[in-house]
Amino acid sequence: MSMWVTGANGFIGRHLVRLLADSGDRVHGIGHGAIGDVEKRRIGLEHWLNGEIDAANLNALAERAEQPSAIFHLAGGASVGLSIAQPFEDFSRTVNSTARLLEWMRHSAPNCRLIVASSAAVYGAHHSGILSEEAEPRPLSPYGYHKLMMEQLCRSYAAHFGLRTMVVRLFSVYGMFLRKQLLWDMCSRLQRGERELMLGGTGDEVRDWVDVRDVVRLLSSLATRPQQEKLQVINGGCGSGTTVAEVADILTKSWGEQASVRFSGVVRPGDPFSLVADGGKVRTLPFAWEIPLSRGIADYVHWFKEDTR
Amino acid sequence: MSMWVTGANGFIGRHLVRLLADSGDRVHGIGHGAIGDVEKRRIGLEHWLNGEIDAANLNALAERAEQPSAIFHLAGGASVGLSIAQPFEDFSRTVNSTARLLEWMRHSAPNCRLIVASSAAVYGAHHSGILSEEAEPRPLSPYGYHKLMMEQLCRSYAAHFGLRTMVVRLFSVYGMFLRKQLLWDMCSRLQRGERELMLGGTGDEVRDWVDVRDVVRLLSSLATRPQQEKLQVINGGCGSGTTVAEVADILTKSWGEQASVRFSGVVRPGDPFSLVADGGKVRTLPFAWEIPLSRGIADYVHWFKEDTR
Repeated sequence: MSMWVTGANGFIGRHLVRLLADSGDRVHGIGHGAIGDVEKRRIGLEHWLNGEIDAANLNALAERAEQPSAIFHLAGGASVGLSIAQPFEDFSRTVNSTARLLEWMRHSAPNCRLIVASSAAVYGAHHSGILSEEAEPRPLSPYGYHKLMMEQLCRSYAAHFGLRTMVVRLFSVYGMFLRKQLLWDMCSRLQRGERELMLGGTGDEVRDWVDVRDVVRLLSSLATRPQQEKLQVINGGCGSGTTVAEVADILTKSWGEQASVRFSGVVRPGDPFSLVADGGKVRTLPFAWEIPLSRGIADYVHWFKEDTR
Repeated sequence: MSMWVTGANGFIGRHLVRLLADSGDRVHGIGHGAIGDVEKRRIGLEHWLNGEIDAANLNALAERAEQPSAIFHLAGGASVGLSIAQPFEDFSRTVNSTARLLEWMRHSAPNCRLIVASSAAVYGAHHSGILSEEAEPRPLSPYGYHKLMMEQLCRSYAAHFGLRTMVVRLFSVYGMFLRKQLLWDMCSRLQRGERELMLGGTGDEVRDWVDVRDVVRLLSSLATRPQQEKLQVINGGCGSGTTVAEVADILTKSWGEQASVRFSGVVRPGDPFSLVADGGKVRTLPFAWEIPLSRGIADYVHWFKEDTR
């Protein structure tokens, strides 16, 4: 099948392209970033269009490559912090790009499946316990608001123009090639020889950690899955919460040397205290999460050491 | 005071500009439409910038005119039908223009008050009885979705950047100079001599009709009203429902000749059956609706006959 991936040059995008290509799909991508021919082949992309997601570029990709059977829409803002520093930029990346993509599909690919990467950030705080897909969204950051607006746009195009869309609210996705956030920061400092790590927050923040390899297996499975409703929303989380302190502990142990971790107690703006999925709906797809956190982190540490040797 | 009105060339915009100018405010507008100097003075605008709502044009207006004390944001899509025919155009007019306005205010006018015209269309159908501001929004059209997204953007900028914003969900605004919709269509046909009018819908659709003169009095009062919360949402409806058949009846009687009205029974897509405000919150501002429907329609008919003589 012909699969398109927006934001194919990103962290999740590159993992997804690899998986799809390995499964025999022809994969075409659009988004920002220069990718040379050698690199393109290496990561599994047949065609790559480096540019905005707009009608002209989507038409250009359709001419060069082929019409998509499914589009995985991963492009968009990717940082709560950036969305506070540059809210309009985050809006443009997340909401505007989706508006242009949906409009292009309405005209040019109305029967194409759409799988959209949203975020647990749409839930925000003010919740207790695990988050079902029906919980009221109360974002805590521009990033969360823009992801929510993106979902509503999808809902509108599904309801009024019949675009078949699956929205996946991703929780805390980590894994190899992620060169930012907690694991990356800790590994970088351990590698520099630091043995007393001070981290932001309180350490008690609870997240639903999912390995990117599980995540792209989930996403790819949705492209061909029968879907009754025109729009469906599912949590991309396994339903199990782990604190940042526990993750830090697993990571230092995986690293293999003694290190102590403390927390500044300073909570970052836009950061909900707890984000753990009700994982019931995704399990009934059916889908099984396979990579436990301990193995995922061990693999990450292994990759980091190899990668930065 | 210096007041800016986006979409000042529209139906509500022109009424609002007149009222503000008559109250001694200096009024500056931005939006689409060529307005000559004579016309500008006639309608009460000191400066008019004919163009998109974007940073460059807002900066240009600020240089020519003066910084705003309050901005009335009336620009945006204005038709459910158009939003179905051209959803991206409606998105751009409503959501994109608001994103650019909010971002400009964040940088250049962070203490300016913002009064935003939203719509009862955000409620959609699936409700029974009157609609309180807390009712769950379930839009029935792209127009309604885009207005909802616009509200969320305002909510995000209020929460994260402190912009003080009042969102007014306008119900069925009618009045002089409105050259479309039910009253205009009926008057046009009566004037052509038709005496057997067939109208769309069932006639049983219930709406909360508010005269534009009351509406702009409400809007203008909000610019200087103390406002505790950074973002507040109020219904711009009087809380009284009247069916389309009743309105048609009042209008034919006002017209002064015998005419019969029938309904096709064909419901237009995106048209909820009932949209009537819970008018409690707006009354406690305080605000009193002054123009009863019978007088508003009589004035409309009078204006129509004068205008088209």
